Amino acid sequence: MSEPQSERQNENQGAARGRLLGLGVGPGDPELITVKALRLLKSAPVVAYFVAKGKKGNAFGIIEAHLTDAQLRLPLVYPVTTEALEPPLSYEAIIADFYDTAAEVIAGHLDAGRDVAVICEGDPFFYGSYMYLHDRLADRLAPRFEAEVVPGVCSMLGGAAVLGAPLVYRNQTLSVLSGVLPEAELKRRLADADAAVIMKLGRNFDKVRRVLDELGLAKRALYVERATMASERIVPLAEVDPMASPYFSLLVVPGEKWQG
Amino acid sequence: MSEPQSERQNENQGAARGRLLGLGVGPGDPELITVKALRLLKSAPVVAYFVAKGKKGNAFGIIEAHLTDAQLRLPLVYPVTTEALEPPLSYEAIIADFYDTAAEVIAGHLDAGRDVAVICEGDPFFYGSYMYLHDRLADRLAPRFEAEVVPGVCSMLGGAAVLGAPLVYRNQTLSVLSGVLPEAELKRRLADADAAVIMKLGRNFDKVRRVLDELGLAKRALYVERATMASERIVPLAEVDPMASPYFSLLVVPGEKWQG
Repeated sequence: MSEPQSERQNENQGAARGRLLGLGVGPGDPELITVKALRLLKSAPVVAYFVAKGKKGNAFGIIEAHLTDAQLRLPLVYPVTTEALEPPLSYEAIIADFYDTAAEVIAGHLDAGRDVAVICEGDPFFYGSYMYLHDRLADRLAPRFEAEVVPGVCSMLGGAAVLGAPLVYRNQTLSVLSGVLPEAELKRRLADADAAVIMKLGRNFDKVRRVLDELGLAKRALYVERATMASERIVPLAEVDPMASPYFSLLVVPGEKWQG
Repeated sequence: MSEPQSERQNENQGAARGRLLGLGVGPGDPELITVKALRLLKSAPVVAYFVAKGKKGNAFGIIEAHLTDAQLRLPLVYPVTTEALEPPLSYEAIIADFYDTAAEVIAGHLDAGRDVAVICEGDPFFYGSYMYLHDRLADRLAPRFEAEVVPGVCSMLGGAAVLGAPLVYRNQTLSVLSGVLPEAELKRRLADADAAVIMKLGRNFDKVRRVLDELGLAKRALYVERATMASERIVPLAEVDPMASPYFSLLVVPGEKWQG
């Protein structure tokens, strides 16, 4: 009996309180936002977005043209962590504090009855910073607030599309890997995958290319920077300058064609 | 020198010929189509879609309301392959013939200068039948026709969203697996994944649940049928009837929370 009751209480509270909206806005091309995310974005009195200090932010750039003056812009500015940190300071502690604070700022608006749309590049639940807000405010098992998550086109599918590379056929396995992984683990996982996408290249590019070479996958691998954005660049793997590979680059190793 | 020349030739030919459009229309909710796919859909004189015999087709149902009478509907009806096949007949040969024929029907429209939009549930390059047309008509290395692929929200991200389950954190590995995989391979791959999505359950559900149980993952796994569709059903894993699990069901094993 107690569970249904407490659910009903939450619903009653929800009527007066705002809803948390996690809106996927797609990989970069402003037209790759969904009709649903666009509708909810336009109706939200508060629009929050993560951004690096001094930048406008990719996600905000994607949707900026749709906002009206009446909507509150709420930038969530990542802490700068370029300096070496002395214990007890750590990147993990600083970033956890930042998410705690950001969540409470948003909670303030929700408590005041205002919906808050958090705009997320790509998809909210696919390596997105929104996940840390969602866990704090709308965890599935212990939600403080009502939330709606609108899925988006993720960067790896944007990348496959602009590369013209069908990604996974039929019963193939797809492995989505981070370039940050240690070289041996990256190699083991890539060797075992039918198809793979490697994200977070940047400074890891040289290591990743070496692994692809060693596995004989370099010929199959395709590289793209900032897929679907205005600044998109497709570069042959051998010609990528490892010092200049941006964070928003990815490698696709498409599955072997199934003749079908 | 020769490559740029032949590219220019293709461009000239392209002016008079139609373009192949692979349009991701999202996982089911008609509002989860992108603004771009919707625009290209409305402008296409021919709208093709895969469909089982006697059915309307999920993808077609998603976009039907946007079509005008002037647009040609081109259903691509899968061959019925329920009967046991005697050699030299095989499922592979029959389906390859079917894709060959479908590709030539589309090629006829493209040759006549008509753009053909192929509507794809989810994303065109993520386990989509469109891939077999794309390989035949617009292969990256030897394109017969100009093509544009518009990525879409794939079913696994639609599933994670409606389950309220952040899928992969930070540098976690995501494995996308087919329920068709042999039990031992499924177990090995699941044991090695930080986060996983298992597609194509249906008749494989019982096997998959057994593997999740054995690995101690049953508590973390979340199950949804027809995510984001009107008929969506979220069912606790233990309560799923393995005989009734539809093809459009999936299991999500979210990555362990990173406190961030």
